[in-house]
Amino acid sequence: MRILILGAGGMIGQKLAARIARDGFRGAPAEVIAHDMAFPPSPAPVARQITGTVTDAGIMKPLAAERPDVVFHLASIVSGEAEVDFDKGWQVNMFPCWELLQALRAEHEASGGSYRPRIVFTSSIAVFGAPFPEVFDDEFLTAPLTSYGAQKVICEQMINDFSRKGFVDGVSVRLPTICVRPGKPNKAASGFFSGIIREPLNGQEAILPVPDTVSHMHASPRSAVGFLLKAAELDTADLGARRALNMPGVACTVAEQIEALRDVAGNNVVALIKRQPDPLIERIVEGWPRRYTADRATALGFKAETDFHEIVRTYIDEDLNR
Amino acid sequence: MRILILGAGGMIGQKLAARIARDGFRGAPAEVIAHDMAFPPSPAPVARQITGTVTDAGIMKPLAAERPDVVFHLASIVSGEAEVDFDKGWQVNMFPCWELLQALRAEHEASGGSYRPRIVFTSSIAVFGAPFPEVFDDEFLTAPLTSYGAQKVICEQMINDFSRKGFVDGVSVRLPTICVRPGKPNKAASGFFSGIIREPLNGQEAILPVPDTVSHMHASPRSAVGFLLKAAELDTADLGARRALNMPGVACTVAEQIEALRDVAGNNVVALIKRQPDPLIERIVEGWPRRYTADRATALGFKAETDFHEIVRTYIDEDLNR
Repeated sequence: MRILILGAGGMIGQKLAARIARDGFRGAPAEVIAHDMAFPPSPAPVARQITGTVTDAGIMKPLAAERPDVVFHLASIVSGEAEVDFDKGWQVNMFPCWELLQALRAEHEASGGSYRPRIVFTSSIAVFGAPFPEVFDDEFLTAPLTSYGAQKVICEQMINDFSRKGFVDGVSVRLPTICVRPGKPNKAASGFFSGIIREPLNGQEAILPVPDTVSHMHASPRSAVGFLLKAAELDTADLGARRALNMPGVACTVAEQIEALRDVAGNNVVALIKRQPDPLIERIVEGWPRRYTADRATALGFKAETDFHEIVRTYIDEDLNR
Repeated sequence: MRILILGAGGMIGQKLAARIARDGFRGAPAEVIAHDMAFPPSPAPVARQITGTVTDAGIMKPLAAERPDVVFHLASIVSGEAEVDFDKGWQVNMFPCWELLQALRAEHEASGGSYRPRIVFTSSIAVFGAPFPEVFDDEFLTAPLTSYGAQKVICEQMINDFSRKGFVDGVSVRLPTICVRPGKPNKAASGFFSGIIREPLNGQEAILPVPDTVSHMHASPRSAVGFLLKAAELDTADLGARRALNMPGVACTVAEQIEALRDVAGNNVVALIKRQPDPLIERIVEGWPRRYTADRATALGFKAETDFHEIVRTYIDEDLNR
């Protein structure tokens, strides 16, 4: 099996590559081609590491010519950055997806129709926007309130249509907020959800920019990698025409996050969280879903953590202690 | 007021131009710039008629430089054609919308932010796809089953996001099937809905390719023009962030269409309808919504006919007798 990961240098991409290096794919070793603008100093082991940008109009053809069996398309700038730099958001988050699909379609056609790769695309629950009912389900409309969300919806639609035509075999996984992200804060407006756990566990102060009544849905990076691998392996005949799936997660308030941290790590750690309201972040977060069902994904076997304590412990186990 | 109509040579575009020529816009005469690949021999009177294609990468800048107050973006190939010619569908139905938005945004920025045109985009209920509940509402997901539908969703998302940013002020009107279309059949899979009324009234045979139990939603071309003008005039502050609206229509079965024709025009006319099943058209139509509510649009004052008899009489009045 040959696997292409776009956005392989990012946090999820690295964890995905490391998981495949350790466990293989579908029970056998796999050849991984990793593409990104940059990689960490000690990257996950892969067959080939290619440094470049997905906005390079010429890049998708040679990558598609490798005829990967699976393409994980994770390359994206985050919500906060796409909101600040409108042009960059569209150029990174939308157009390369189109170029990728067209390049894979050309290979499909050149193969006489036998080549039809699985694409797994990281979409986001940012495809949804307020006003929300208390809980919404898999049939709720995609009405994003950020450019990032709009770009994700558009990629989902393209992947659905290229798949319906039989050119590729795509699945879009709508990730909840991934928490606890290891490493440094990024520009995502959702960054504080990880920061208030990660920084205190590392003995540093963390800023909480929203009221602790804010409710949200989370899954660990380990679960995110599990979602991607599940999406790469599942029988897409079970999906019908709707290939974008809401991923499960743990629904909880910021207060509940903090109490889970207290239970796992103690009062002194929690004392490092400083409240400092930020109206811009508060406004963005207000437009995000609080709670949704993920019945389709759950029925297909996608699994997240069951409480936030487990998410804190996953971070300590997988990232803090390494 | 200066008004740009893209796709002005088509059936709706011509009726829109003729209506504005007759009634003005917002109660005053308006200068209309009409753009399309071709125009009928006796076109509706406009200030300027420009022949060209929206796929010409250079066309949107000079059109935007005219700084129209309102842009009606009707240019599109129909569902059946977009299904058969995949590349043409995306090149006509998606990319020009992006180019238009970017060109208008450039004018917005060049004006120091004062220029912010209204865009009215003709979307379609083809943004929805089966499986459907018996009736769905304004919060139902956009999961199209045709390339045409996917392209319409994507344009809606772009228009929403450019509007949210304040570059333009857009509204997408999701038209039900427009019936009775005058003139010759086109390549739309929905063409027979008009054909079974129009051809018999013109003394010609019509083919009915689906069972007469098929249920669908219709509005007349006169209503469609009304929807566009309403969308051009309404206060978008009433829309919030969701700028795509399901338009109202008459929900009825093919059998009810035929009985309305019988009531208005008699048995001899109805006898010209020939049943000739077409599995491809049947399959496409099965993926379309049978019945939905249009509560948001209705509350905003959008109006369609109340029964199919009225739709038949509108055709006789507006098109057959001219």
